[in-house]
Order: sequence, then C-alpha cells, then structure tokens
Amino acid sequence: MTLSSMSFVPSDLSTAEVEASEQLYGDLAQDVRLLVDVAIRARVDADRVAAARDLVRRAERILAEDASQEPAGIHFNTEGRSWNWGNAVVGVRNAIAPPVVLRWVDDETVRSEVDLGAAYEGPPSCVHGGVSALLLDHLMGECASAAHTRLIVTGTLTLRYRKPLPLGRIHMQAQITHEDDRKVTVTAHLGCEAYGDEPAVEATGLFIVPRWAREGSVSGSLD
Amino acid sequence: MTLSSMSFVPSDLSTAEVEASEQLYGDLAQDVRLLVDVAIRARVDADRVAAARDLVRRAERILAEDASQEPAGIHFNTEGRSWNWGNAVVGVRNAIAPPVVLRWVDDETVRSEVDLGAAYEGPPSCVHGGVSALLLDHLMGECASAAHTRLIVTGTLTLRYRKPLPLGRIHMQAQITHEDDRKVTVTAHLGCEAYGDEPAVEATGLFIVPRWAREGSVSGSLD
Repeated sequence: MTLSSMSFVPSDLSTAEVEASEQLYGDLAQDVRLLVDVAIRARVDADRVAAARDLVRRAERILAEDASQEPAGIHFNTEGRSWNWGNAVVGVRNAIAPPVVLRWVDDETVRSEVDLGAAYEGPPSCVHGGVSALLLDHLMGECASAAHTRLIVTGTLTLRYRKPLPLGRIHMQAQITHEDDRKVTVTAHLGCEAYGDEPAVEATGLFIVPRWAREGSVSGSLD
Repeated sequence: MTLSSMSFVPSDLSTAEVEASEQLYGDLAQDVRLLVDVAIRARVDADRVAAARDLVRRAERILAEDASQEPAGIHFNTEGRSWNWGNAVVGVRNAIAPPVVLRWVDDETVRSEVDLGAAYEGPPSCVHGGVSALLLDHLMGECASAAHTRLIVTGTLTLRYRKPLPLGRIHMQAQITHEDDRKVTVTAHLGCEAYGDEPAVEATGLFIVPRWAREGSVSGSLD
C-alpha cells in the first residue's frame, strides 16, 4: 500500500455541483448524526426499538441502490476545489465526523470549535482521550499542509493529557513551530471555556513532505 | 471538572438484564453503523435522499421519546459487571464505535481485530491517522488497567506512523512494559495482514493511577 499524487482523483464536477451535492448529502449526514446520538440515549421498549430499526433499514436500502463500493477518497476539480466527503474528522457526508470546520488564522495557524455529544464519550461525561487525539491529528495535519499548499503525512504525534475534558463545546488550535527541509513541526492544544487558557490536551507533531509530493503537483493533508 | 470513583454509577440492573439490553440496543446500533457507511457511498438522486431522510427522522423521533438527556457514562452492578455503552471505541450502543472487542491474552496483554470501512477514512482508501490514535489510546488504556483490576487515566501518548494503513481488517496489540508506583508504561502496535509483522503504527503510552483510585474501591479504564 503506497500513497501518491494518484491518490487524488480528478473530477469533472464543477465547484457549484460539488457544493450542491455537499448540501444534499450533508443534510442527510446531519440527520444520521442525530440518530447516532439518540440511539445511545434512548430508553424506549423493544417494540419501539423494532419500529425504529425497520425505518433505519428502509432508509439504508434506499441509499444502497447504486451506491459506490469504494470509500469517498479525495477528489479535486479544475477550479482548484478539493473534497474528502468521507473523512473521519471533516467529512461532510460522514456521520462519524462532528464534522470539524477549520478556521485559518494565517497560513501557519488553524483553529476550530466543535460541539461533542454523547457519541464522543470516554470517561463518564468526558471526551474520549482518543477522540482528542483524532481531532488534534487532523487539525495538525491540515496545519502542516500550510493551508493545502503542500502535501504531508504524519510522522510522529505526541499527546499530553492535562485535564479531563467535559463533553460539550471544545476549542482547538494548531500552529507550525518549525520547518526543516521535508520536516514540519506543529504544536497544538485543545480545551474548553471552563478551563480558560489552560489546555486539557497538548500535542506536538512531526509531519513529513513525501519525496513524491515535493514537486507540488498536488497539495493538501493526507490526514 | 474532576473524575473520581463517583464517576462510576452503581446500577440495580442484573447482569442478565444488562446483556438483554445490550442485545436490543446493540442490534439497533449495528443498523445505524450500516446507515452511516452507506450515507457516505450513496449516489441516489435528491428525491431518494429526501425519502431516506424522512425515514431517518421518523426513527429518530421514536427513539427520542423519553430519551435520557445524559451521555451513557460508566455503570456497574453488584455482580461486578460494568458497562460503558456510549464509549467512542467499545460502546455497543454507539454507532461511531466499530465497536472494538478486546481479547485478553493475559493480565498484561490485550489484542483486538476490527474491520474499518469508509467511515474511518483519512488518506484515500486508508485509515485516518487519528482513528489509529483513537483505537490505540483505548486499547492501551484498557491494557494499563490490567484487565480492570485498577483505574487509570492517560498521561502521555506517543504515536509513530510507519506505513499508510489500508481500510479493511486491522489488528492491534498492547502490552504493559513497565510499572513504577502509580505510573504504568504500555507499548502497542497496529497493522494489517498485508504488512505481516511490520506495524503500520507504533505507540508508547504513560498511564497514571489517580491518587483517589489507589484504594482500589473502583476499577477499569477511564478511556
């Protein structure tokens, strides 16, 4: 298994068509996110669970007609728009993804806020430590790609857990702190309003620009 | 926000009742997992998406009747059975969780195999690096708890990404490599059949036994 610029698939879709599709299937994914959440919290009896399962299976059969057998992958068009609808963190069609929406402060700093509910629990009423790792890995990878001006892969990632992070609104930030040839160092933190400036989780990551990507014919994070 | 033994909630449910409930709601979560997956791969038109959304919303409304407003948490009964149905990695009621099922080789080594589909994608056709971190963090935390004979929290976690990991069947193992007073060191790796014994991701974690948990009045991993 190797990744290369061929991992990015060119598409004939116009940016307008991409955004219309994101709206259509993004709304579906949002409905599925609500279903995932309530399926954890539900207390109804077996008959009602059976009725809900029947509806879910009917929806699944409708969507399965002519469904692709492949994962979503990463696509781009001639207008320079790229999309990764199935991504586990930012994929607008993936109900597992919150989804995280990135805010670029500058080419070397990216921030995001996201609300994490019952589906992201680890310790009681807290965000799973591995979910914090998932979000930070992605945010840091996007940051290392310098706003998608180069393609990178994760080398090493170190996480320091300072405090338990309650479920709810969390904020995170990543910034490039060092660059050396093909190596990019990124630091990041994740926290919540109750902790103010004190991070709940701190992270340092070393990201690599693959040799095959140095010519810059493709760009973006492979996270 | 602090965690303590009070984070574990005693329950009047018998183990038989717990397992009946896990069957009922676990089957629902499995249906929702299939829906999450097909919602990423679907190619049907807007009318069919609308029909699927209507069914999903009807299922959501049925399950929302009298639903708890709290996340699932961690519960235990007088028979020594504990359950964390909403956990992001192992929660049987959580459609975000694959769910991972742990296999204890001995009190200091735990293994698991899991199939990861389109919802766990990062790089094209590959497992998201952050998903590998999520799974390893949980597996290592369970390992550090020595088969739930003590309660631990994650201190630091370091991940080394060696190779891109294709979506599909993956295997992972974690083992305790050092113990010193309240500190437990765990190493782990994650890979796939195509790579044989060569890991795709390696990890080292330092886990802490909180002072409040030393008396051993509770046990388990807070991951």
